[in-house]
Amino acid sequence: MVSSATKLRAHRLSRPAFTEPRFDRQLGRILEHATEVFCDQGYAGASMRDLSRATGMSLAGMYHYFGSKERLLYLIQKHTFSTIVGQLRNRLKEVSSPEDGIRAFVHNHVEYFLEHQQAMKVLSHEDEVLNGEYAREIAEIKREYYRICCELLNRYKKEKGLEFDSRTAVLSLFGMMNWIYTWYNPRLDRGAKQLSRDMGNIFFRGISFGRNNGTANRRA
Amino acid sequence: MVSSATKLRAHRLSRPAFTEPRFDRQLGRILEHATEVFCDQGYAGASMRDLSRATGMSLAGMYHYFGSKERLLYLIQKHTFSTIVGQLRNRLKEVSSPEDGIRAFVHNHVEYFLEHQQAMKVLSHEDEVLNGEYAREIAEIKREYYRICCELLNRYKKEKGLEFDSRTAVLSLFGMMNWIYTWYNPRLDRGAKQLSRDMGNIFFRGISFGRNNGTANRRA
Repeated sequence: MVSSATKLRAHRLSRPAFTEPRFDRQLGRILEHATEVFCDQGYAGASMRDLSRATGMSLAGMYHYFGSKERLLYLIQKHTFSTIVGQLRNRLKEVSSPEDGIRAFVHNHVEYFLEHQQAMKVLSHEDEVLNGEYAREIAEIKREYYRICCELLNRYKKEKGLEFDSRTAVLSLFGMMNWIYTWYNPRLDRGAKQLSRDMGNIFFRGISFGRNNGTANRRA
Repeated sequence: MVSSATKLRAHRLSRPAFTEPRFDRQLGRILEHATEVFCDQGYAGASMRDLSRATGMSLAGMYHYFGSKERLLYLIQKHTFSTIVGQLRNRLKEVSSPEDGIRAFVHNHVEYFLEHQQAMKVLSHEDEVLNGEYAREIAEIKREYYRICCELLNRYKKEKGLEFDSRTAVLSLFGMMNWIYTWYNPRLDRGAKQLSRDMGNIFFRGISFGRNNGTANRRA
């Protein structure tokens, strides 16, 4: 059962964080605990009872506020992607060239997921769990995110007169970034800023070889 | 219960395919069905009963030959990684330069996993399931695989006088390749040969920018 109060509360996720900050913080905290449970036990292996225990909310409360396990996963995905896209749009306001745009994209993505590695694992492992309207809504945010990257890349490609397969390039870039959660070790690896610079360099140099003019990538 | 006959049979997995081909084919077929079940239902969500149904082997037979669900996952992982490493070693015999070696590595990896996308998903999603001796044995094969790539890359780096972080570079390359199962669409995307060439190009151009001599990458 999904009450209209639940719908209203879920809707607030996409509203700015300054409305009812206490409620948003609480909801954020519950989603974080739920993310941990899905990360450790997998979506299929986690029960509403496990989620209730981890979040400290009664089982009845969990069903009342969230309706179902699937809805919780949907809220985690929606919260994560909406936050990333929102932060990205803010960063993109401050840059003008497509190269700086893509570097901002990489930095934003790597920074967010280094801070939320459990979310990264849950998003990647439970990518096909959602159905119906939930699935459509999340797919739409993801498409928007992918489109932002493609548009920046196509502007860059045109500006520099390059030739390469954009789809393979963008999805290779996503692969580099999204695989991080499987290997990142804070004792061995550098922080988000350096890591996104290294990956940005591999990517830009990788796609830029075919450029016609002889000017090299400015960033080392 | 793991009988010594089971141990013997499992051991055969790592032996050349021409010994007892009929048995190896049968075992291979069972592992393929088990891979499908783990891929669709997740390891946590799949029971020995599901596996028995999918493979067409009785439940008693499943327990007799394989011992447990964990052992089946172990056999899938061992079979996959041993096959990839074996095929790679054969390919590396035919090349001499480190660049050709890394290109053979990428081609081998992409080709295998485009043909076995379900295995790719299972390996990546159930990476942390195994315990004890199973986990150690798989980790050792994976380390060997990673080391082959690192050694080739370090030879390349030295030969060309390049400077970059090898760990980030190798793991970015693995990310590009291992993310394929999430997006590959045979109607849109090209085959293993072209895809590994495109990824190889992004990778080589990406890491090769800092070279001292002016010679460009020969492959377009």
